[in-house]
Amino acid sequence: MRVINFSAGPALLPEAVLRRAADEMLNWHGSGMSVMEMSHRGSEFTGIAQKAEADFRQLLAIPDNYKVLFLQGGAMAMNAVIPMNLLGKNPRAAYVNTGEWSKKSISEAYKYGEVDVLASSEDRQFTYVPLQSAWKSHAGAAYVHVCTNETIGGVEYHWVPNTGDVPLVADMSSHILSRQIDVSEYGVIYGGAQKNIGPAGLTFVIVREDLLDRALPITPTVFQWKAQAEAASMVNTPPTYGIYIAGLVFEWLLEQGGLAIMEQRNIEKAKLLYDYLDSTSFYISPVAPDARSRMNIPFFLQDSALDAAFLDGAERHGMRQLKGHRVVGGMRASLYNAMPIEGVRQLVDYMREFERSRT
Amino acid sequence: MRVINFSAGPALLPEAVLRRAADEMLNWHGSGMSVMEMSHRGSEFTGIAQKAEADFRQLLAIPDNYKVLFLQGGAMAMNAVIPMNLLGKNPRAAYVNTGEWSKKSISEAYKYGEVDVLASSEDRQFTYVPLQSAWKSHAGAAYVHVCTNETIGGVEYHWVPNTGDVPLVADMSSHILSRQIDVSEYGVIYGGAQKNIGPAGLTFVIVREDLLDRALPITPTVFQWKAQAEAASMVNTPPTYGIYIAGLVFEWLLEQGGLAIMEQRNIEKAKLLYDYLDSTSFYISPVAPDARSRMNIPFFLQDSALDAAFLDGAERHGMRQLKGHRVVGGMRASLYNAMPIEGVRQLVDYMREFERSRT
Repeated sequence: MRVINFSAGPALLPEAVLRRAADEMLNWHGSGMSVMEMSHRGSEFTGIAQKAEADFRQLLAIPDNYKVLFLQGGAMAMNAVIPMNLLGKNPRAAYVNTGEWSKKSISEAYKYGEVDVLASSEDRQFTYVPLQSAWKSHAGAAYVHVCTNETIGGVEYHWVPNTGDVPLVADMSSHILSRQIDVSEYGVIYGGAQKNIGPAGLTFVIVREDLLDRALPITPTVFQWKAQAEAASMVNTPPTYGIYIAGLVFEWLLEQGGLAIMEQRNIEKAKLLYDYLDSTSFYISPVAPDARSRMNIPFFLQDSALDAAFLDGAERHGMRQLKGHRVVGGMRASLYNAMPIEGVRQLVDYMREFERSRT
Repeated sequence: MRVINFSAGPALLPEAVLRRAADEMLNWHGSGMSVMEMSHRGSEFTGIAQKAEADFRQLLAIPDNYKVLFLQGGAMAMNAVIPMNLLGKNPRAAYVNTGEWSKKSISEAYKYGEVDVLASSEDRQFTYVPLQSAWKSHAGAAYVHVCTNETIGGVEYHWVPNTGDVPLVADMSSHILSRQIDVSEYGVIYGGAQKNIGPAGLTFVIVREDLLDRALPITPTVFQWKAQAEAASMVNTPPTYGIYIAGLVFEWLLEQGGLAIMEQRNIEKAKLLYDYLDSTSFYISPVAPDARSRMNIPFFLQDSALDAAFLDGAERHGMRQLKGHRVVGGMRASLYNAMPIEGVRQLVDYMREFERSRT
């Protein structure tokens, strides 16, 4: 029996995708090979990669003047790769600090240029997104970097910063494909795949073509966006199986009706849990209502002495990976695309039952 | 029906491994989760990763003073990551050039330090390994880098260079686990997994502990060996599914009897094909006999006008991915661990039949 998996990532995948991957494991479409066994330059795999990119483009309506790259290293490698690719002509980078992932991006950027932190929500334990009117000026920066969904703090931008001519760079690891976005408002969108896209080890970069000309000379060739864009992400052997699974997820999303439908479902799912959290003081939702993430919902038991009992009971009800990140403690429910609303209902039912049993 | 897959990588995997991966896809060992869906910090996945490392250590008899890292980016990322990690105290790197992969390593290293090429076999189209007696002195170098099996040229070291106190660094991507080695003769052994280990996107590094203290400040955190060694390769989310498949391959190798047995089988398989190549002038084996790779065997038809017909016939006989690398042309048969001797027999039978039909 499959559990209800609330992991923040690597995270649950659509069961239909896993079934298909299992079915095709030894013999993909009559090729006599597993996808893992295919040369990345053969027609079978290049077909898989092209279809994955086309579907990703369709889902996000990515304009033609943006390149899509499938790389390796996860968003944490990108913390170095972003400044390496963007600070070659202008060493000044600007960051907004809304949580643990922003902090990691910022501390890595110091290795490659000058860093200006325009705003931070650390003063209130990263429970909100600073309004742009309170940001320092980004004038003269090579780019402005934001993390549009903080997986640990559960803080999400529900608006798009306006940085004018300065490219906006967004780490969307944990909410990409969960909502509609206007790609043209960003210079670069990137993230690790292991939340809404596929297995860990695959990294996506959506980059506006005019930003491909400013890499530092120390950029490793496999991380030079220009080289990878010209080689269709095959300067080196790409993570082929990850691209294949991502492609199956993209097909599944298109079958569901695309991102407008997914966004509606994600709003509904998050509302179910937040509404319950707001209705009780037994549990605490720490995040400002206008910055609450739809994907990652941290909550605390008023009495943290009950944490272990809460988690034990959840396990007995088939609910897994609800423990909060070690940095913040408490609980966290991640409600990615593959989480059905029924899973959230069961969580809320259990939370209500647990509350009743203890009060 | 499964084909006979001679791909140079990503390459065929043991069928038993693929069957197990398919069986466990939706529910690993009763956990109710796919391995792809597990938090990398949960007990299920850390157990998988620890077992994989322990089995890899057992197979190669890796001494305790070496760390094993499972990273991302493939050997081509390592072309930058090696000098980044080793040139922090001494900027002088030394390389031996035995083919296309050596060349890529060398050209990338110039970004991070001074590069001395001790020897090269480019004068004879990379068909041999220069004897160490003909190498320039490596005195004063931070390390000496070799590619111990050149996948494209089909050239393999059948001896270990003696670099004294200067650490020997070896790219073993395409022959790791195909033969017994004495790890203690090397400072660093590394490679991409997609030949004898598992799926593309996983990269292994075996590094002697005393070499962890010399990284350049510009090294991205996820590629700092010291940081990754201290975090059991979990500074960032590792390529979890790749590690799982690698673990299944390691178990399979141990079941087969370990590397002494695999080496015997690989010697036999290669001999079958080389003996045939040496018995005819219809096909040409370009590599010097003492440097012939057991893993990657390039060969040419005397009359290259027959190449297309040869490949067509091979496909009709269920043999795939025999075309040589675009840089050298001709044919190439890769005979990794998962290739049964029966596959090589069928190839030789077909080659003999093709020869007869054309002469």
